[in-house]
Amino acid sequence: MENFAFYNPVKILFGKGQIANIAAEIPADAKILITYGCGSIKANGVYDQVKSALAGRNVFEFGGIEPNPHLETLLKAVELIRKEGIDFLLAVGGGSVLDGTKFIAAAVHFVGDPWDILAKQAPVTAALPFGAVLTLPATGSEMNTNSVITKWETQEKLYFASPLVFPRFSVLDPETTFSLPPRQIGNGIVDAYTHVMEQYLTYPANAPLQDRMAESILKTLIEEGPKTLANPQDYDARANLVWSATMALNGLIAVGVPQDWTTHMIGHELTALHGLDHAQTLAVVLPSTLTIRRDRKSQKLLQYAERVWGIVDGDEAERVKEAIAKTRNFFESVGVRTHLSDYGVGLDTIPAIIKNLEKHGMTALGEYKDVNPQVVEQILTLSA
Amino acid sequence: MENFAFYNPVKILFGKGQIANIAAEIPADAKILITYGCGSIKANGVYDQVKSALAGRNVFEFGGIEPNPHLETLLKAVELIRKEGIDFLLAVGGGSVLDGTKFIAAAVHFVGDPWDILAKQAPVTAALPFGAVLTLPATGSEMNTNSVITKWETQEKLYFASPLVFPRFSVLDPETTFSLPPRQIGNGIVDAYTHVMEQYLTYPANAPLQDRMAESILKTLIEEGPKTLANPQDYDARANLVWSATMALNGLIAVGVPQDWTTHMIGHELTALHGLDHAQTLAVVLPSTLTIRRDRKSQKLLQYAERVWGIVDGDEAERVKEAIAKTRNFFESVGVRTHLSDYGVGLDTIPAIIKNLEKHGMTALGEYKDVNPQVVEQILTLSA
Repeated sequence: MENFAFYNPVKILFGKGQIANIAAEIPADAKILITYGCGSIKANGVYDQVKSALAGRNVFEFGGIEPNPHLETLLKAVELIRKEGIDFLLAVGGGSVLDGTKFIAAAVHFVGDPWDILAKQAPVTAALPFGAVLTLPATGSEMNTNSVITKWETQEKLYFASPLVFPRFSVLDPETTFSLPPRQIGNGIVDAYTHVMEQYLTYPANAPLQDRMAESILKTLIEEGPKTLANPQDYDARANLVWSATMALNGLIAVGVPQDWTTHMIGHELTALHGLDHAQTLAVVLPSTLTIRRDRKSQKLLQYAERVWGIVDGDEAERVKEAIAKTRNFFESVGVRTHLSDYGVGLDTIPAIIKNLEKHGMTALGEYKDVNPQVVEQILTLSA
Repeated sequence: MENFAFYNPVKILFGKGQIANIAAEIPADAKILITYGCGSIKANGVYDQVKSALAGRNVFEFGGIEPNPHLETLLKAVELIRKEGIDFLLAVGGGSVLDGTKFIAAAVHFVGDPWDILAKQAPVTAALPFGAVLTLPATGSEMNTNSVITKWETQEKLYFASPLVFPRFSVLDPETTFSLPPRQIGNGIVDAYTHVMEQYLTYPANAPLQDRMAESILKTLIEEGPKTLANPQDYDARANLVWSATMALNGLIAVGVPQDWTTHMIGHELTALHGLDHAQTLAVVLPSTLTIRRDRKSQKLLQYAERVWGIVDGDEAERVKEAIAKTRNFFESVGVRTHLSDYGVGLDTIPAIIKNLEKHGMTALGEYKDVNPQVVEQILTLSA
């Protein structure tokens, strides 16, 4: 096992009716800005629950944060915060609203161009405190320090992370997700699954507890994902998806082990250039990455085949092939297509993707830092 | 899944050489009290590492905290802290030193008799901040709010918990545990294993991820425990035991599920009356508790039999019986005996144990709150 530091102070309030408890988590004299997306929280009752929980508090609102949140939109919130002296943020929405709110929190006190936080990885030295009410199980943003932001002007999608942007608390009420369309639930399943794979499917580090915990999340997603798609009102199935998505990226399964993230880095460029949903890019890229990298990942692929999919027959190459096929089939079964052609994207995009990865310094990806542009080309070619 | 709140802000520094990093975790102007046990840290080099890491700092020392730490001892530390104006504690040792330090931290500002924190569950309203350097994998105290203290005068062993006694940080360097005798490693394995069982082996709550994570810890202990006993210098095996013991009781596998703790409550009384090691009491009581409660726990016992021990043959009663037998054999295999008679304790102790449980309000134990004195008598009788 490798040395590690682990720290995650996010308070999770999980279950039915927990939105009612948020007032106690926010300082009484706070000037609160509620940040949200494109209005679904007004349709599904979450907005009313939040307003009711914060009755009598000093509350401002900023809506309109889009999927793959845009720098240009978020800077308007920064302006409002500075003007009104707002000192606490409450993100109400899915991963995009949470990621966007993390950026807003970090940008308010940033000196200089806030895009440098992502483009130059400029250190965040202060951030507004914020809480979250999660309405979409997928990204894990509710219990981590990660944020992915898109600069619309230049079509760039980049990330930053800072311990200063841990949510102070996150409310996870599975009932708030009942009204989500199947496409978003399918995306959430693929996103959570791929988060686990990026931290698990590398090379053995003699960390059996981390491996088993990762496999636990994968098996639970395989088991509960189809259930919650078939019956969105099944509270327990949805609760199990929500908790799996949170556990998939809160740092715990990553301790002391190598990580990959090749699929995410290629995926971000696909979204930036072609507008695919984040999870769609992962569903396209992950099976190809596993196939192209099957020799370097062979030990973990065989473990994954046996423990997650129960594949024990056939020679090693056959078992690996079957495990990757089952992964692809699982993504398709939850409604997320796995080929570039499914989204009208041709292989002529490859030079542009590689050029953007190079621009962003992503020329040595993966757990061995040897996924160079040539390997990216192989991966994308296989994703046709 | 049941509603839950989860919060665990302990920063973990895991791995070789991490003691060298503690100075950065303690305020520069702190008056620090190092608390420790009966001197093993001076023999194994940990004391020197800590002193070296804190060179130039304002450091006091308080040694002599015994196993099952005594109120009477800990109050002497409280006196020293008040006299010297100490404002940060650093616990260096195993679960007893950590539990004792939590009590010291809570007692310093307590108005009235600090034993009330345990005997009357008086609320803790303030506590000194503290960090920990763990030298014995077992109790999980390094990443939770629990503390068990013994009042020597009255032979009472009681617990308290408060979010104010989370360690600010805990250093877990597996190498510091290489010199531990096999008895303490065996005890640690049984302690961690039983912690998981208290949170897992109850009734199904449709929480498959929590179940699988609990099973992950159990399987890792079964796999790595014998390895680390056979070769104490095997870094990875020891690291896996250390991390498993921490994960066994940091709150994560308990979220949204019922808990038992019958075995621990009976065990505490056995230690208080007869001086058995904590883990010895657990090894004695757990198999009997599972047997006596096998009807109410049948669904989880069958799941445990299949997933942890691979038992699939035989009728339900046979599978349950075999799983409990394997549990007992595992404890014996790591050197912890599982019968009262192994420790020279006769069944004539039962009335005294029950009287003490009644005195401590422990007359309705377990996940159904139906383990009354009569059931305790059955459990202890079976433990002969």
